[in-house]
Amino acid sequence: MINSLNRVIPDFLTPYQGIIKGKRKLIEEVVSKNKEKLNKSISDIFDIVPITSGMTLSFHHHLRNGDDVLNMVLAEIKKRDLKNMILAPSAIFPVHAPMVELIQNENIIKIYTNYVNGPVAETISQGYLKELLIMDTHGGRPRAIESGELAIDCAFIAVPTSDKEGNGNGIDGLSACGTLGYAISDLMYAKVKVVVTDHLVESVDRIDIEAKYVDFVVLVPRIGDANGIVSGTTKPTKDPVQLKIANDTAKLIEELGFIKQGMSFQTGAGGTSLAVAKALESKMIQKKIKGSFASGGITDFLVQMHESGLFERLYDVQCFDLEAVKSYKRNKYHFKMSASKYGNPLDNPIVDELDVVILGATEIDLDFNVNVTTDSHGNIIGGSGGHSDTAAGAKLTIITTNLLKSRTSMIKEHVTTITTPGETIDCLVTERGIAINPKRVDLLEKLKHSKLNIVAMEDLLKKALDITGIPQKRNHSNRIIGVVRYRDGSIIDSIYKI
Amino acid sequence: MINSLNRVIPDFLTPYQGIIKGKRKLIEEVVSKNKEKLNKSISDIFDIVPITSGMTLSFHHHLRNGDDVLNMVLAEIKKRDLKNMILAPSAIFPVHAPMVELIQNENIIKIYTNYVNGPVAETISQGYLKELLIMDTHGGRPRAIESGELAIDCAFIAVPTSDKEGNGNGIDGLSACGTLGYAISDLMYAKVKVVVTDHLVESVDRIDIEAKYVDFVVLVPRIGDANGIVSGTTKPTKDPVQLKIANDTAKLIEELGFIKQGMSFQTGAGGTSLAVAKALESKMIQKKIKGSFASGGITDFLVQMHESGLFERLYDVQCFDLEAVKSYKRNKYHFKMSASKYGNPLDNPIVDELDVVILGATEIDLDFNVNVTTDSHGNIIGGSGGHSDTAAGAKLTIITTNLLKSRTSMIKEHVTTITTPGETIDCLVTERGIAINPKRVDLLEKLKHSKLNIVAMEDLLKKALDITGIPQKRNHSNRIIGVVRYRDGSIIDSIYKI
Repeated sequence: MINSLNRVIPDFLTPYQGIIKGKRKLIEEVVSKNKEKLNKSISDIFDIVPITSGMTLSFHHHLRNGDDVLNMVLAEIKKRDLKNMILAPSAIFPVHAPMVELIQNENIIKIYTNYVNGPVAETISQGYLKELLIMDTHGGRPRAIESGELAIDCAFIAVPTSDKEGNGNGIDGLSACGTLGYAISDLMYAKVKVVVTDHLVESVDRIDIEAKYVDFVVLVPRIGDANGIVSGTTKPTKDPVQLKIANDTAKLIEELGFIKQGMSFQTGAGGTSLAVAKALESKMIQKKIKGSFASGGITDFLVQMHESGLFERLYDVQCFDLEAVKSYKRNKYHFKMSASKYGNPLDNPIVDELDVVILGATEIDLDFNVNVTTDSHGNIIGGSGGHSDTAAGAKLTIITTNLLKSRTSMIKEHVTTITTPGETIDCLVTERGIAINPKRVDLLEKLKHSKLNIVAMEDLLKKALDITGIPQKRNHSNRIIGVVRYRDGSIIDSIYKI
Repeated sequence: MINSLNRVIPDFLTPYQGIIKGKRKLIEEVVSKNKEKLNKSISDIFDIVPITSGMTLSFHHHLRNGDDVLNMVLAEIKKRDLKNMILAPSAIFPVHAPMVELIQNENIIKIYTNYVNGPVAETISQGYLKELLIMDTHGGRPRAIESGELAIDCAFIAVPTSDKEGNGNGIDGLSACGTLGYAISDLMYAKVKVVVTDHLVESVDRIDIEAKYVDFVVLVPRIGDANGIVSGTTKPTKDPVQLKIANDTAKLIEELGFIKQGMSFQTGAGGTSLAVAKALESKMIQKKIKGSFASGGITDFLVQMHESGLFERLYDVQCFDLEAVKSYKRNKYHFKMSASKYGNPLDNPIVDELDVVILGATEIDLDFNVNVTTDSHGNIIGGSGGHSDTAAGAKLTIITTNLLKSRTSMIKEHVTTITTPGETIDCLVTERGIAINPKRVDLLEKLKHSKLNIVAMEDLLKKALDITGIPQKRNHSNRIIGVVRYRDGSIIDSIYKI
């Protein structure tokens, strides 16, 4: 094998391809940064860069199910009938259905993403993607980009407010979505960086996207649909079973000694997660506890806890609702963080500072392995996001789930797909009992005299099967259509054609 | 292929092997940290860990050519006749000659290092090492360790002063060597960490090695020979040719506008490098310049510049002489840095903040590629150390060398081995002219009216060949015995059996 310096190297090793940061960048800037940045259309950008068949294009998912930008680029790929494109969006939602046709026609042949749901997920599960689907974590994606493993030819970065040089932020404009944490590695490491905005201003007050990294700016009529931008549920649950799980979780955290001065905490945007936060809030107020920080996707509920002094700081990679966006604008200690600072194992990430994280599961098994990537039929329905990252970093990782959903046990002998390895999961809280990872002898020791219903994972599985009966064993095809890549770049499991 | 979770994965990808940091570590600590740390001998450690055939052992090189610790471990490997061992010392010196026999007998079959010189280098060049020699950079080694690419089973860390828990430093004791920057990744990421000291104290004032990372402490009679610990030359040259090169280099830096308030600077410990520092000192005093920092290996000369206010801070990965050791003890703004903070491309390293670095070369070619790994016969004589790291990071990278040494041209059409890619080298200063990398049009523009003797690299080569005659073309064997690995993990060149 020959590398970019024309030297022979052993072919089982990675060839040098030119330096990825530092001086080469400097040289390129000196030589070529004398062109007009502002352009009229995505199509212009395809001509100027130029974007050709086989290239890798990247996107962030801060506009979630309201995103128009990825779809605009897909329309351009279709119009030009480019082939063998590789896409690297940080997540894919139902709104991205136009991608289906492009996968089927081999315009797109490979996808790197952290989460995929809706028609695109179905199409991939059916085996239409010619090459592999690589499913990263929120922290693994910046690691892959920064290490050169995922080389991006052109990043299209939706920015709700920008000036014509590309200084921008996500807090103003019609499509405001808050912090832009998932876009930062793309902004810093892609070969060409394009800001796409629908709100061009003379100057921006807060600069979250720096013009010095931006090659082009495009003004379009609309980057997203505000109705799709915020998540669904951002209120604590009222369902009695989920409330029991939430309250038991808070008690568990307390008994394990994690409700203490300076505690740090992360939870998701789902109803049970927020109910845990609410139960925790009561205990913190009662004990006069002041936590150090809450992190992750930030919701109104966490903003309220911050503003009432329960958490000193918020580290926000993504605002889950409009109250979080407003808080980021208004609160001095509501900090943005990049996905790399959030979860990249090589970047001393915030997840390593976490005391407690509450996570969900679509399946969990006797080894505490968790699946949030596929359902029990093997259909792709999501992906890790920050699941593996926080589980590995936090001192206490708790999975909360109903033991039974639609007469199916959430506990399996083996999960269909491993998203997060059991060695990083500490506790499972269900309505019928709490299981502790037997490797955490320290936790078991602390719970020796607990009044909580601590049971073995095997017993929980048995309880569930006593109700549901033994489920039929499912066989998957042998064709691997994707892989789950752990945050360090190693492969944790394969995903099969259904 | 099956990974550690017993899942089938595509065999061209990297299998998951368990988490490398975070929680698993926590579990292991909780379960097993109840043993006595202090042990009597290296042999005890081999029994307790236990150390067995095929394992990877690591070492730092702060004791340089006075190091006894690597040799003690080699003696133990020999005594037990362990086979297929992999060594990862940050550098190898002539004092490590006992390794030759162990390579020849396949006790040691693979070596990762950043620099190798003396009998071990000769043995490897002759093709005795069964598997590859992997030559990393000072920044690439921590990247490889922290990313899990270079997994260390046991690190033997020579520490000049330690308490019995393993809190230690390098500034006190008989074998004081100063900062311990090259040991930090090993300390944090090896599976087992052993502190080897010859100066056991009740308590240490300054803790550079933290006990919480240390599994075992061994007290031995002597970790090193003080005479070999400090480098040879640490005084500016008096040779008139080298003085001309040094003075021209200082003028070049000045003309390019880098002698300015807040400037940062790195140079080596060689005579010419120090003469450049001296010439720079005059210009800084004359223009009343206060620099921000000097970095790298720190010498007495840089300490003097710091103490007279010319550089506000020193960032010290390794003390080159005893004055530097004393300064580290005494000066508040003489900071230690780990090798990762020095040069790891994924750790926002200090090298990325550098304005100017002065480096040497054993060969440089028409593409500005530099060789400091082999001589022109292909014999291994050194390695990158921080050469590639600083060249990639600094805004201005200058190579200084005599055009001719022993009637041989230092400029070649193609270097024998590429250590540092030419795209990161900006200028070459020789006694017969200065060549500027044609890619740096910005520098050429600034030098348009310079009185310095700016010439094309091709003309410098021609000047040299007019004197020496055309050298015989040398053929190397086809057998690859080692590789030069760039700081990002890609392979920049192969090293051949001579």
